[in-house]
Amino acid sequence: MSVTAVPGFRAAGTSVGIKPTGKKDFAVVINDGPSMNAAAVYTSNKCKANPVKWSQPRTSDGQVRAAIINSGCANCFTGDFGFETTKLTAHAVADAVGCNADDVLVCSTGLIGTGGEDFRSRLVEGVPGLVESASAEGGSDAAEAILTTDSVSKEALAEGTGYTIGAMAKGAGMLAPSLATMIVVITTDAKLSPEQLDRALRSATAKSFDRLDSDGCQSTNDTVALLSSGAGAEADEAEFTALLTEVCTDLARQLMADAEGAAHDVEITVTGAVSEDDAVEVGRAVSRSNLVKTALAGEDPNWGRVLAQVGTADAKFDPENLDVSFNGVQVCRATAPHEDAAKVKFGRTITIEINLNSGQAEATIFTNDLTHEYVTENSSAAS
Amino acid sequence: MSVTAVPGFRAAGTSVGIKPTGKKDFAVVINDGPSMNAAAVYTSNKCKANPVKWSQPRTSDGQVRAAIINSGCANCFTGDFGFETTKLTAHAVADAVGCNADDVLVCSTGLIGTGGEDFRSRLVEGVPGLVESASAEGGSDAAEAILTTDSVSKEALAEGTGYTIGAMAKGAGMLAPSLATMIVVITTDAKLSPEQLDRALRSATAKSFDRLDSDGCQSTNDTVALLSSGAGAEADEAEFTALLTEVCTDLARQLMADAEGAAHDVEITVTGAVSEDDAVEVGRAVSRSNLVKTALAGEDPNWGRVLAQVGTADAKFDPENLDVSFNGVQVCRATAPHEDAAKVKFGRTITIEINLNSGQAEATIFTNDLTHEYVTENSSAAS
Repeated sequence: MSVTAVPGFRAAGTSVGIKPTGKKDFAVVINDGPSMNAAAVYTSNKCKANPVKWSQPRTSDGQVRAAIINSGCANCFTGDFGFETTKLTAHAVADAVGCNADDVLVCSTGLIGTGGEDFRSRLVEGVPGLVESASAEGGSDAAEAILTTDSVSKEALAEGTGYTIGAMAKGAGMLAPSLATMIVVITTDAKLSPEQLDRALRSATAKSFDRLDSDGCQSTNDTVALLSSGAGAEADEAEFTALLTEVCTDLARQLMADAEGAAHDVEITVTGAVSEDDAVEVGRAVSRSNLVKTALAGEDPNWGRVLAQVGTADAKFDPENLDVSFNGVQVCRATAPHEDAAKVKFGRTITIEINLNSGQAEATIFTNDLTHEYVTENSSAAS
Repeated sequence: MSVTAVPGFRAAGTSVGIKPTGKKDFAVVINDGPSMNAAAVYTSNKCKANPVKWSQPRTSDGQVRAAIINSGCANCFTGDFGFETTKLTAHAVADAVGCNADDVLVCSTGLIGTGGEDFRSRLVEGVPGLVESASAEGGSDAAEAILTTDSVSKEALAEGTGYTIGAMAKGAGMLAPSLATMIVVITTDAKLSPEQLDRALRSATAKSFDRLDSDGCQSTNDTVALLSSGAGAEADEAEFTALLTEVCTDLARQLMADAEGAAHDVEITVTGAVSEDDAVEVGRAVSRSNLVKTALAGEDPNWGRVLAQVGTADAKFDPENLDVSFNGVQVCRATAPHEDAAKVKFGRTITIEINLNSGQAEATIFTNDLTHEYVTENSSAAS
């Protein structure tokens, strides 16, 4: 009930038959105010899904009354018909809630290239009942209804000084920098202007979701929305931003732990960088290597493959003076073998530290290994 | 015997015990002239193996008398000791052949982070016998001795006007743009200056090896060397470049077909691009997607995943007007579903055509699918 743990919000989640399994697939989060200030960030993919094409220009005014989300169909690459479906859905929500359709954020997640008449009618006809059932107890149902190949719901909650932040997320693959196949709705009652919410959200996502790289793939539908009811206290922007970053990092770790087919959660920390950007660039280069990721699946502390990836990064460092540790064992010092790799003990979490020995900046990238299960889940025509 | 099918060259391949299997692991190609003009291109990885550090500055004068290549050990990230090993090897070859050590090109391929006293002594002590056994019949032995996880030797041969081009290659993984884990030695008797050889080699590799992307990983050891004995006719540079490009493309296809764990050879052709660079950029973006590559392993013509990757490419196109065909069946037109995906017939080779509908330029990228076998081969600590 995280998104509805925040004063001013009601939510619901139900099944309208989009998923053939009959699982919940339709959710709404409604902001009853007094304010409806909001901010949102979207995928940077140039090929955007219809809900992103609808929502992105309409949230730029910082006003969102309701977010409507379906799972089971991404409504992506479905042409004008698909955009019209999104528009009709937004209007149905506007009618049911009593607001302007331009203040309705629409999100879809699921299969790409699908979504015809049947999908449209399930959405449009499902809206009135969904909105009617929305309540301050509906957060968990909503969190469940946005899932696709996720195995568990992802929720987070944090208390600030006189306000609360609640959040729900979905995503279990295609988690890459510049967002992922990820839908996140964050609610708060903190009194903040749209500009403050926007700054806080961009800062928080840059250090959390943007540092996830599950399989290097970038989705067409990613949306992270932050809605404020203003029913709580005026918030200190710095405190709020720090708390929001914690919430987003918590969700990012939950997403990574549930990544499709992953057997290990991997944290790649790059230290000794000239700049934080360099540290992020090096971490991403390593996190994208299938050779590194398959080695991790086999619990092989293959620092040679790590350095081969470092060498492809557009960052400043001395190739002759790189250190690499796996789970605290420094298997490579000054670009040469050091401690015995057999000393490395493996568990579910693997930490790789790469010291560039060139500066003071650092950053951590979250990724996972590349397993047989990943291939199995993603090589099926049904996925 | 391709490299020795060219007048002026002798070669040999033998085992000196670097590979625990006892398979051939040491090769030499010697240019007996009259000229020893040469050109070479190397990995763009900043973290370079010791043989690359030795060879790159020493081939910039366009003179190479002999190439010495070992498999089974990359001599990479092995510090000053490793560089000294390379240097001692070059000097041993110089002594045996009767030339300057600076005219000896050294290549190593195999495991990274290994190569101690035992490796060094096997190389240095093995050189005299290897050089002595070199003959005009030794090409095939040499081609076999440079292999690592390759399942077959790769050779190519072409006849120009009054001259021949012969070549051998190894590489079966880490095949990415800007070269791959790839060692290629090309011989010719065409009379060409070092500058002509350099221009021809850069042009040929840009359109062949640089358009391979097996697993997105870039090696530390890649070397492509072109040696000219000048024993044949003066060559027309344009004809020679065209022929060399054919030879390199032939080898690139052989490398892709033997990529680790691949079940499908994939050719991604991007048409209708504003520029050839744009076409290459889009093709590479698609070829790097694990979601596309796992779909291909499952023979799923998942054009949605293809377009999701196109959308991440830094190229000019209209996201609403993209066409995708699999094996000639246009499953997507104008960024929406078109022909029935069930019509696509799959075989070992899969061709994907992406029409950006924005210009006249095109390019083809060669890649392969992502299979269980890839994970198996690369998750073993021994690989």
